[in-house]
Amino acid sequence: MYKNAATRVAVLGASGYVGRELVGLLDGHADVALAFATSESESRLDGRDLIPLADAEGRWDDARLVFSCLPHGVSAPAVGRAEAAGARVVDLSADLRLSDRAVYGLTEVYRDALPEADLVANPGCYPTVAVLSVLPLARAGVIDTTRPLIIDAASGVSGAGRNPRRDLLFGEVAEDFRAYSAGNEHRHLPEITRQLAAVAGAVDVVFTPHLLPVRRGILATMHVPLARELTRVEAEAILLEAYGDEPCIRVLPGALPTLKDVIYRNRLALGVMPVKHVSRPMLTVVGAIDNLVKGAAGQAVQNMNVMCGFPETRGLAC
Amino acid sequence: MYKNAATRVAVLGASGYVGRELVGLLDGHADVALAFATSESESRLDGRDLIPLADAEGRWDDARLVFSCLPHGVSAPAVGRAEAAGARVVDLSADLRLSDRAVYGLTEVYRDALPEADLVANPGCYPTVAVLSVLPLARAGVIDTTRPLIIDAASGVSGAGRNPRRDLLFGEVAEDFRAYSAGNEHRHLPEITRQLAAVAGAVDVVFTPHLLPVRRGILATMHVPLARELTRVEAEAILLEAYGDEPCIRVLPGALPTLKDVIYRNRLALGVMPVKHVSRPMLTVVGAIDNLVKGAAGQAVQNMNVMCGFPETRGLAC
Amino acid sequence: MYKNAATRVAVLGASGYVGRELVGLLDGHADVALAFATSESESRLDGRDLIPLADAEGRWDDARLVFSCLPHGVSAPAVGRAEAAGARVVDLSADLRLSDRAVYGLTEVYRDALPEADLVANPGCYPTVAVLSVLPLARAGVIDTTRPLIIDAASGVSGAGRNPRRDLLFGEVAEDFRAYSAGNEHRHLPEITRQLAAVAGAVDVVFTPHLLPVRRGILATMHVPLARELTRVEAEAILLEAYGDEPCIRVLPGALPTLKDVIYRNRLALGVMPVKHVSRPMLTVVGAIDNLVKGAAGQAVQNMNVMCGFPETRGLAC
Amino acid sequence: MYKNAATRVAVLGASGYVGRELVGLLDGHADVALAFATSESESRLDGRDLIPLADAEGRWDDARLVFSCLPHGVSAPAVGRAEAAGARVVDLSADLRLSDRAVYGLTEVYRDALPEADLVANPGCYPTVAVLSVLPLARAGVIDTTRPLIIDAASGVSGAGRNPRRDLLFGEVAEDFRAYSAGNEHRHLPEITRQLAAVAGAVDVVFTPHLLPVRRGILATMHVPLARELTRVEAEAILLEAYGDEPCIRVLPGALPTLKDVIYRNRLALGVMPVKHVSRPMLTVVGAIDNLVKGAAGQAVQNMNVMCGFPETRGLAC
Repeated sequence: MYKNAATRVAVLGASGYVGRELVGLLDGHADVALAFATSESESRLDGRDLIPLADAEGRWDDARLVFSCLPHGVSAPAVGRAEAAGARVVDLSADLRLSDRAVYGLTEVYRDALPEADLVANPGCYPTVAVLSVLPLARAGVIDTTRPLIIDAASGVSGAGRNPRRDLLFGEVAEDFRAYSAGNEHRHLPEITRQLAAVAGAVDVVFTPHLLPVRRGILATMHVPLARELTRVEAEAILLEAYGDEPCIRVLPGALPTLKDVIYRNRLALGVMPVKHVSRPMLTVVGAIDNLVKGAAGQAVQNMNVMCGFPETRGLAC
Repeated sequence: MYKNAATRVAVLGASGYVGRELVGLLDGHADVALAFATSESESRLDGRDLIPLADAEGRWDDARLVFSCLPHGVSAPAVGRAEAAGARVVDLSADLRLSDRAVYGLTEVYRDALPEADLVANPGCYPTVAVLSVLPLARAGVIDTTRPLIIDAASGVSGAGRNPRRDLLFGEVAEDFRAYSAGNEHRHLPEITRQLAAVAGAVDVVFTPHLLPVRRGILATMHVPLARELTRVEAEAILLEAYGDEPCIRVLPGALPTLKDVIYRNRLALGVMPVKHVSRPMLTVVGAIDNLVKGAAGQAVQNMNVMCGFPETRGLAC
Repeated sequence: MYKNAATRVAVLGASGYVGRELVGLLDGHADVALAFATSESESRLDGRDLIPLADAEGRWDDARLVFSCLPHGVSAPAVGRAEAAGARVVDLSADLRLSDRAVYGLTEVYRDALPEADLVANPGCYPTVAVLSVLPLARAGVIDTTRPLIIDAASGVSGAGRNPRRDLLFGEVAEDFRAYSAGNEHRHLPEITRQLAAVAGAVDVVFTPHLLPVRRGILATMHVPLARELTRVEAEAILLEAYGDEPCIRVLPGALPTLKDVIYRNRLALGVMPVKHVSRPMLTVVGAIDNLVKGAAGQAVQNMNVMCGFPETRGLAC
Repeated sequence: MYKNAATRVAVLGASGYVGRELVGLLDGHADVALAFATSESESRLDGRDLIPLADAEGRWDDARLVFSCLPHGVSAPAVGRAEAAGARVVDLSADLRLSDRAVYGLTEVYRDALPEADLVANPGCYPTVAVLSVLPLARAGVIDTTRPLIIDAASGVSGAGRNPRRDLLFGEVAEDFRAYSAGNEHRHLPEITRQLAAVAGAVDVVFTPHLLPVRRGILATMHVPLARELTRVEAEAILLEAYGDEPCIRVLPGALPTLKDVIYRNRLALGVMPVKHVSRPMLTVVGAIDNLVKGAAGQAVQNMNVMCGFPETRGLAC
């Protein structure tokens, strides 16, 4: 496509599912050009050369902003070298999400801090959907924080990466469904509780992810204990008040979202339903995102757009 | 296959997913022969003639036991006519599940009542997995009934039947996932609460079903509030104590079940995991069944076996 | 998105799979604005009002170009009314594809006729992949037209539309695969033979479509009888000579395409392999397109771009 | 299940898709008991211990008949040791299929040789469907052997085994479809041509397999050049004459089979359609099997049944 006077960017770890999605989004972005992209396992991606990470060392100067899609643990050192070379960084790994050194890149929440940020920790996919879905209710003070918040979420296989594993073979995943990291053992839990605590104070969370036989998308069904009864319209009004002007969040009045509402889009879709026949008030909230887009590469581009002063949805289908 | 001196049985509503599964199971059952099967929409099923329900009227005499897979509302009157003609009945519809007139055919729970029963209401698929999974904990008195039991369950499409509907087209369901009847609006909820109440007293249940892009199988993730802490081994011991000798229930020590463990089998598979990082004790229980087998046709055959004095698993892969 | 001074267009039949794809593409197209869109079955599409076709009658003036995604048989009369009102038309139905009244919109073949065309018959999905894949070989004179050309093609379910049909339910299509219209009974066959005959003379074609358990995409495996032996490199050279500069066609040297290479793109991907161990020379050609994009809505936009003098790939990911 | 006085059998390589299917079938077989089963990668299978192949050495005495599901190349030596120890062998690998030392276990063709056989080479999945589908036409002398027989076949992923490979991940296979080993490069081709040559003389075959996004099942679309025109009924009569009494083959009059007709069954389903609009007569034949059952483990049990004098379909759903 025709490019404006372009900001040069780099992608570290371009051959995984997130990296490929990100390179595709950057290709269609009018204000940036890809300086280089790295991969340890592949040398070509859709007609473009990939270089080993080691070869990036001489080329940091060529990139104003570096995206790291490297694996957890591998990312932080590379991010450090990019920073040392003067590049701004969006780190899509988990390495810096619990650190105070980086701005937590949940765009709708930390938008004001992004223009000055040199280091952004892009949120995990589950925390993105969970925190954004519940935050307006927490801010409105309607959550009963003495009872646990239950989050049952299901993700497509791209969340587990592209490395060969028997349990991710088509023959194992198709026609199957399973819970994993049950009992609050998933590493995304601290990210969720930390973000909620900042707004609502400490709250018990029970977070159980599941593996879906789909390629992409996360649907989270959240059961929120309420401090007082809310009608469906009242609950929707709280979400609409918070998100009515957000270009990447859709509150669906009178409906619950499905994966189809969000896949291939940088969008969170949200719906609510009060729970009948229970003695203390509860609200079921359902949120859906594409784990590769709003849950990873798309939100990274959204963050870059705010960091660099581009229109926030440039290059994104929301 | 070679048949023993056979009991003659009939199937009403044989062309839906449940009816077809049932006819297949009866074909492979050594002690029964199919007298006739009815369908309004199809006249042949795998080489066998199907007759309209109206034509069954002259043929009740030919069947000692009648299975009804008719739609809810249509089933009860047909069941009445079969009873009047002297047949014993297993009704797979929801019509009689909340009635005291029929034995509730959760085999492992009501086994003793089945040999004398002339009318059995076969349980719904969701109640089968939910009630059997939680019952031993309720009986052991370890559930805190002042807090709600959360059940997030996901079912394959066969649970929704074979009638043409746009929202069940392959193009709509594949790569999608959605909640439905959220907020405790599903008609299976009273079946679940009624059965639990009989054992544990009244307990709040929050039941949210989801539609999975698979053909068959239900996985239920249940978050059970506990009256006291239980280790994984202690919780498993309660389940093993209850179900260790059950031929159609597998407790998986140290593991959680997936759909693959149960599809095409008359089996409930069960696993548990205590929840960490919460202030009051909770246990996550995961149960899986094949909705067409243990959740419908298989359990109906299991009930028939007990009713008629056949070996309980005759004709069933457990 | 920001729109240039926009040409106003209309879409008839916007709620089917092709219509929705087309509306999505037009939304992202910088040079056009959607004047109106019609549907008989739905009144809203992703936040936009749809009107009944009857209500289009007073509004033809508002559209410079009309796309018809109406069903076969219903389309031709509506196209006539749009033409009478002075609009240029791209008809995505089969109604006019065998007529001399319309330009056949296989863009790469009839590009020169499009700028002057007022009526374009957009090709069928199977003919698009079959004709474009074989045409360069026909033009190069390397096909032995005394032997039949075998085309075994497989399509995702979106090719069969969105109307409720039992045989298209998820429960019927998932884990299944089937041939249909075998024995040269598919209505796309005359479109294929007519186009090939124009270049190569009469040639026997054996065309067998299949239904794949995927949502979108067509893969065609074609066995081409050759007049003389060709190495893989020689055959690729013929295709590259024809298509090397085409923005929407990718010839893959030394590889065969899969659906993943083309879905969500306005792209034909092509590869070849000479057949060993046969007494007379044959070449297997594999072509892949997204049936909803290059096989329908995307090619319609490509045609519009050429008709209106826009850059040919404007609004398209190729 | 209750077992008759049982013949003891062993399974080598029990943890792959074929081995697991075979163990399941043997578990449900009234006349055999599993002496032992081996695996190099897993130590348990559905509650049963698996032993390393090396540990089988001291136990051959315990098995009257040994099934080998070992990988190609690894199987032949193990088969030799089992034979040396006095066991009869059914080898499911490709190692002995082109050898004259073993009976080729296409049951319907070589049934008479099986009772005396000590070594049976179980056919490949593609040859099973291709050869059985075409053989009656070859025997009837209606095939024009001067023109090529075209076989386009598509298989579910279980045909490729259970070892981790990136190209078999769910994220790669779902929503995809691809040809592989095109140009007659598949190792099953010699098995097909050897069997056809024995009946019809040399004939050119063009065999192109494809990978389907399903777990099990093969559908083969075969275009057969005819020596004279045949109506559909005439062609069906040839197949019915050959197979009308076969318990594991279904000829579908007036219809073509789909995967659903055969999965989880030891069945070949067959249908035909004459090709219109071609200058020389052709017949399209479509055959379907479950690659794991009639294409592997089921046919192995069928062979064992004939070898041992059990009823031919004992333990099999046909």
